[in-house]
Amino acid sequence: MSTTFHVYDTTLRDGAQQEGINLSVADKMAIAPLLDELGVGFIEGGWPGAVPKDTEFFKLAAKELDLRNAELCAFGATRKAGARAADDLQVRALLDAETPVVTLVAKSDIRHVERALRTTGEENRAMITDTVRFLTDAGRRVFLDAEHFFDGYRFDAAYTRSCVLAALEAGAEVVVLCDTNGGMLPDWVTRIVTELRSETGDGLLGIHAHNDSGCAVANSLAAINAGCVHVQGTVNGYGERTGNADLLSVVANLELKLARPALAAPADGQPGGGLAEMTRIAHAISEITNISPFARQPYVGASAFAHKAGLHASAIKVDPDMYQHTDPSAVGNDMRMLVSDMAGRASIELKGRALGFDLSGQPEALARITNRVKDAEAVGYTYEAADASFELLLLDETNGGRPRYFTTESWRTIVERPGGRGTPAVAEATVKLVAGGDRIVSTGEGNGPVNALDHALRQALVQVYPELEDFELIDYKVRILDAQHGTDATTRVLIETSDGQTSWSTVGVGPNLIEASWEALTESAVWGLHHRGVRPR
Amino acid sequence: MSTTFHVYDTTLRDGAQQEGINLSVADKMAIAPLLDELGVGFIEGGWPGAVPKDTEFFKLAAKELDLRNAELCAFGATRKAGARAADDLQVRALLDAETPVVTLVAKSDIRHVERALRTTGEENRAMITDTVRFLTDAGRRVFLDAEHFFDGYRFDAAYTRSCVLAALEAGAEVVVLCDTNGGMLPDWVTRIVTELRSETGDGLLGIHAHNDSGCAVANSLAAINAGCVHVQGTVNGYGERTGNADLLSVVANLELKLARPALAAPADGQPGGGLAEMTRIAHAISEITNISPFARQPYVGASAFAHKAGLHASAIKVDPDMYQHTDPSAVGNDMRMLVSDMAGRASIELKGRALGFDLSGQPEALARITNRVKDAEAVGYTYEAADASFELLLLDETNGGRPRYFTTESWRTIVERPGGRGTPAVAEATVKLVAGGDRIVSTGEGNGPVNALDHALRQALVQVYPELEDFELIDYKVRILDAQHGTDATTRVLIETSDGQTSWSTVGVGPNLIEASWEALTESAVWGLHHRGVRPR
Repeated sequence: MSTTFHVYDTTLRDGAQQEGINLSVADKMAIAPLLDELGVGFIEGGWPGAVPKDTEFFKLAAKELDLRNAELCAFGATRKAGARAADDLQVRALLDAETPVVTLVAKSDIRHVERALRTTGEENRAMITDTVRFLTDAGRRVFLDAEHFFDGYRFDAAYTRSCVLAALEAGAEVVVLCDTNGGMLPDWVTRIVTELRSETGDGLLGIHAHNDSGCAVANSLAAINAGCVHVQGTVNGYGERTGNADLLSVVANLELKLARPALAAPADGQPGGGLAEMTRIAHAISEITNISPFARQPYVGASAFAHKAGLHASAIKVDPDMYQHTDPSAVGNDMRMLVSDMAGRASIELKGRALGFDLSGQPEALARITNRVKDAEAVGYTYEAADASFELLLLDETNGGRPRYFTTESWRTIVERPGGRGTPAVAEATVKLVAGGDRIVSTGEGNGPVNALDHALRQALVQVYPELEDFELIDYKVRILDAQHGTDATTRVLIETSDGQTSWSTVGVGPNLIEASWEALTESAVWGLHHRGVRPR
Repeated sequence: MSTTFHVYDTTLRDGAQQEGINLSVADKMAIAPLLDELGVGFIEGGWPGAVPKDTEFFKLAAKELDLRNAELCAFGATRKAGARAADDLQVRALLDAETPVVTLVAKSDIRHVERALRTTGEENRAMITDTVRFLTDAGRRVFLDAEHFFDGYRFDAAYTRSCVLAALEAGAEVVVLCDTNGGMLPDWVTRIVTELRSETGDGLLGIHAHNDSGCAVANSLAAINAGCVHVQGTVNGYGERTGNADLLSVVANLELKLARPALAAPADGQPGGGLAEMTRIAHAISEITNISPFARQPYVGASAFAHKAGLHASAIKVDPDMYQHTDPSAVGNDMRMLVSDMAGRASIELKGRALGFDLSGQPEALARITNRVKDAEAVGYTYEAADASFELLLLDETNGGRPRYFTTESWRTIVERPGGRGTPAVAEATVKLVAGGDRIVSTGEGNGPVNALDHALRQALVQVYPELEDFELIDYKVRILDAQHGTDATTRVLIETSDGQTSWSTVGVGPNLIEASWEALTESAVWGLHHRGVRPR
């Protein structure tokens, strides 16, 4: 039996239990290749026979999914009490999924056996033995998830241990110790796994942790240090309640800090290649799950290597490695300097340098810029996620100001639903501006007011600046600030635009959502034209 | 010297370094009493003399802040190299802050001493000794944050240890071991703290962890287990990069899992009272920092005790404690059942019961509701955060349907900026509807299109239903779904309304932001009137 270390991803099954996540078959078909590219050894696809979407996923996967590194795993429960495994439809569905690996979940806490399953400890053990044998006889590799293992062990170690031993004896390749309720602490995990291992001989053990006490990553590492050779988790730590162990943090810690190879080598034979793609893969998966990435997520978060403190910013000029725990490029992330009034001039100077502005010899401009950033942030602007708007601000205070491509005379947008419920609403916008010496009036339609304004603005400007023909609004974010009782809120809009080659972000702020959007839209057009080297006409 | 355990909050200083956080003096004055109510022992207010806002905060705090449990701490650096502490303006500003405690940050990694501070190891130690003595001579309790302690110790243990010992010998009450770059793992912390303690005798040690390897909570606990008696962290884990150790998780683990009292007893003498307020305090602080709460945050997150899995939902009926690691009421949180197509009928039945609908005898209604939820979630609705809309859906399928208070004939909103840059934009909306047998046309103004629509709708309805006079829109959230290249996005709007007694949330979804907002606004009016027992007129 191989003792190769297993990295086992359950994003598609346990991760999908997260509040707000609802994966379609197409979503799962899109996520699986990304997990494979990351280099995990196993991908748990779902619960065929219990969840219709999952049955469909395994059918489609058998035909169309071409995994290079990972084995696909079907998840399901042991047979029902008092029945034969061969007669259990749910167990048969596991075979029908035609995966090389089946992961069985079994109860191992006597309280859950008696009160939720309503059977005896002995019958539960028989359910484990029978189902494992039935599946191994059918040629499957079987992993067994011992549900509520740690809670069970703390309540009645002898019974819980007997379930683990029964699974190993019946032929389970790995028994995975699950902290289902997520309440363990690392010391407890170390003690329990060490104690259990003195009874399990050569049997392989795994760890499946949840983050309810904020220790899922540490608990996973504690179990591995105590001898577990299989770790389960989810990308971005998705999962029910506080989520599962974030497999990305676990793997990065193993590879970068403990020098334990965990991910499959990529096709080009370079070890750790998947690790260097981790940030991109994490963000791609969050696009599919439609869960906003958590900026503070270790290793892959947008803020994970972002520095704001003025104190640090000046020292980072000396040596960036003194201020980061690991090289961000090892996980495909980047160090970022943030612009903020807390940062002071040193960070603004550094940030300016990154954008091609040498402010070192211009103390007065630097002071003006610092003050403008401070004032703007006070009313709700943020430049941390809007580099293009920040660059326009730098242009305003240096090099004779930002280019004036057009002057807005007025704009108006109308949204109406001309009938009752079920009638579609329509939106149109009219923009009046002066560009290239001409007064231009342009009306655009759209499926909402900002879409209509975007169309009207673009139609007007393209008459003078055909260069923006291929600009496209690719992301639009709205944040309501200061939403307080009795007052009207301020709105912040962030817009991302692409021209097919590059993308840029701009910000607009105001009490009126449409006005804030207009500001971000016009900044986007100005930056895009400037970046292309277009001169005002 | 007291060996009482210290819970030391640095939300106002280190937490404010987080990307996106920008605390005003008023914000700090609002957060400090909440920290005090939680029961922390120490509140670090900022860096007087270095950050003008912080100087102002300490001035105002001395006059107006009335803390019952906590001591206020001023943070600052040791004296400059080659100078006297008494002549250092920054050190004097620490005295001027007039706090009982001063927390000094000092370098303890020889590489930072030589390359960032550009002085010698010997001079750095003298800076520690002099500054600690100067402040203790002035009657201050001094805590010393040994910056980059762990990285320094791993590079040159002898030098780093000599800095710790110098601080203790000079009279520092506690030396706080900082994992400034956040890259430690719990095993490393255990080993290093244990080793250091064999040299520090009775000297008290503390821990200050960052979460860059995803182990900040576990590292804090490891240090405490190894003998540290002072723990630093921030509420909600705010902080630069991946954030500081989440003080809430640390404290909840200490009190609930390790039976170590950590928080001050509240005024009424009941131990752990602050713990039971933790969820409310965490959310109140996130309102002030204006950082959306992280739903998966341990203990206090909205999802922390939320169950979605159909498998669990049916078993939770048996005994909720079998499916949660701790009683949510211990931290002021609640168990929640989520409505989702993954949840199946068992959760919808449970959720219905919580809202006063007994669906157990109505299998057909239950099936219809389950299908409607599934269809609605597929196009972007979510009922997890919109109980009122879910209740209207339940009414639709039982009890003869939701009440029909009015019929919409049409609506229209116009937003325009009639002039160039700087001219304020104006918004108005016209609603035509039938209520109480009358056709009503109403026009409202607002600072944005949704605000104007809300005013127009309310003005129209109040003519027939004066009961909604005191309804007020208190929160408005917009989420752009499926923002994909080349397609137009779907918008989800969540609205929270209050009538002064209770508040309720409704949802609207559509390609048009205004239309989605209209849906949520009308659902809010209908639920509010129904909840008051008003009958359609």
